[in-house]
Amino acid sequence: MTTIAIVGLGLMGASLAKAVRPHYDHIIGVTRHEETGRKAVARGIVDVAAMSYDMGLPGADIIVLAAPVRIILSQLRQANQHFKPGAVITDLGSTKREIVAAMNALPDQFGAVGSHPMCGKEISGIDAADETLYRDKTWVICKTTRTTPAAHEAITQLAQNAGASTLEMDAERHDAIAAMVSHLPYSVAAALTSAVDGFSQSEPLTWDVAASGFRDTTRVAAGDVTMMLDILLTNADKTLAAIRDFQFNLDQFAAMLERKDEPGLRAFMDMAAQARRGFTK
Amino acid sequence: MTTIAIVGLGLMGASLAKAVRPHYDHIIGVTRHEETGRKAVARGIVDVAAMSYDMGLPGADIIVLAAPVRIILSQLRQANQHFKPGAVITDLGSTKREIVAAMNALPDQFGAVGSHPMCGKEISGIDAADETLYRDKTWVICKTTRTTPAAHEAITQLAQNAGASTLEMDAERHDAIAAMVSHLPYSVAAALTSAVDGFSQSEPLTWDVAASGFRDTTRVAAGDVTMMLDILLTNADKTLAAIRDFQFNLDQFAAMLERKDEPGLRAFMDMAAQARRGFTK
Repeated sequence: MTTIAIVGLGLMGASLAKAVRPHYDHIIGVTRHEETGRKAVARGIVDVAAMSYDMGLPGADIIVLAAPVRIILSQLRQANQHFKPGAVITDLGSTKREIVAAMNALPDQFGAVGSHPMCGKEISGIDAADETLYRDKTWVICKTTRTTPAAHEAITQLAQNAGASTLEMDAERHDAIAAMVSHLPYSVAAALTSAVDGFSQSEPLTWDVAASGFRDTTRVAAGDVTMMLDILLTNADKTLAAIRDFQFNLDQFAAMLERKDEPGLRAFMDMAAQARRGFTK
Repeated sequence: MTTIAIVGLGLMGASLAKAVRPHYDHIIGVTRHEETGRKAVARGIVDVAAMSYDMGLPGADIIVLAAPVRIILSQLRQANQHFKPGAVITDLGSTKREIVAAMNALPDQFGAVGSHPMCGKEISGIDAADETLYRDKTWVICKTTRTTPAAHEAITQLAQNAGASTLEMDAERHDAIAAMVSHLPYSVAAALTSAVDGFSQSEPLTWDVAASGFRDTTRVAAGDVTMMLDILLTNADKTLAAIRDFQFNLDQFAAMLERKDEPGLRAFMDMAAQARRGFTK
């Protein structure tokens, strides 16, 4: 009999619970929010809801930390007294270097693997829970010094049970790629929304003219701010490097537009169009 | 009996033809591409296809120029010898100052109104034609010195027949707003795709990790390059101003991230999230 505890029943945690429920004997949801706990049980997302680590974690074989990154870090440092000896710990945090370091520092009676499933939505909370969220998505796995064969097997199985495919890499490499394909797009979307919002203060027709191009380019700026803030602050160096790389590209583009360099612009735009059309996820 | 001619049967022209066909007695498609003309008739998108201005335009009461902006400009200067006296001309171009200037220079026997329907897709061509493309969208109308009451009425009716709502403003104002909500998002998406594509040259796992955030933020970079190039080159001043405004916002964001100014970042991100959540199109 395998018992899994999911700590945090927001979009990611509750969606994971729904997706994997048929695969485990018992799912415990751990949440500080009474209403969320009630909803999770009433909707059959978990078998039981516990309101604190000491009430929920001691019986769990697998523990999934599904909170903003800095809360995961404090959970790894402070809640491990409530883990069962031999328990396997993973997390769903979007940056991995600090989390893997905190996992490395766990007592060696625990198994631990860092996880980052590459999925999400711009809406958050248990009401947005979606059992298909992980389906056909990439689930990045980062090994730690606490990654026993049993822990590795349990988390690979968890990802597959959710419908995802695992991809292994070290935390440094994960954070560099995620900065480029995820934390940079967020930063750009937030700055773009901010620029358009500022412009709209003196041009009331702005929002009437804005359409699907603006909508899609800025979608991620509507995401959970607390979660994104934790991501940015635990991956600031690599996100800043990605922003500088992007700025270099935009500066090049603007310089060509300034001097009306039509062949240069066309080459730049053709390359971007080709690269983007090749991305079919 | 009203005959309408649509010049250019790409995504925008062919979709408009499909949408308004029930409202006009006769729809003529004008295209230089033989295969497109054959498809348009075979699929019932138009009643008849003509391969040149002199063969298609002399019988049309309403003429819609549905081509990239710089082709529309040359059509307004060179094809008007084939327009019927009293014909009403409009266009679907995404920038309006140069087009309105060219319409102002038309012989005064013609009525003319600039149009910019705020819709599109990242795929192009007649095969992507979609009769719902204009439905519930904003159709910007720019008056010209050739906008007679009859021309104004005919084009307002055309927009409504396509399912859109009209919004009137002058070309200068249109181009400033469109630069901010459309040409800037394109520029940002192209630069972002270019940065990620460059990064992927030395990091082969990049595309495996990229997910829906990258996908949506860069969607418009996959659009029709020739069309976008015409837009940028006929709205370079305002697009450059919008890019500078965006860069100022991104610089502010990056500076806060650099010094780990958590309250500043949170305020910036909260404002962006709120503005973006308020946009529900």
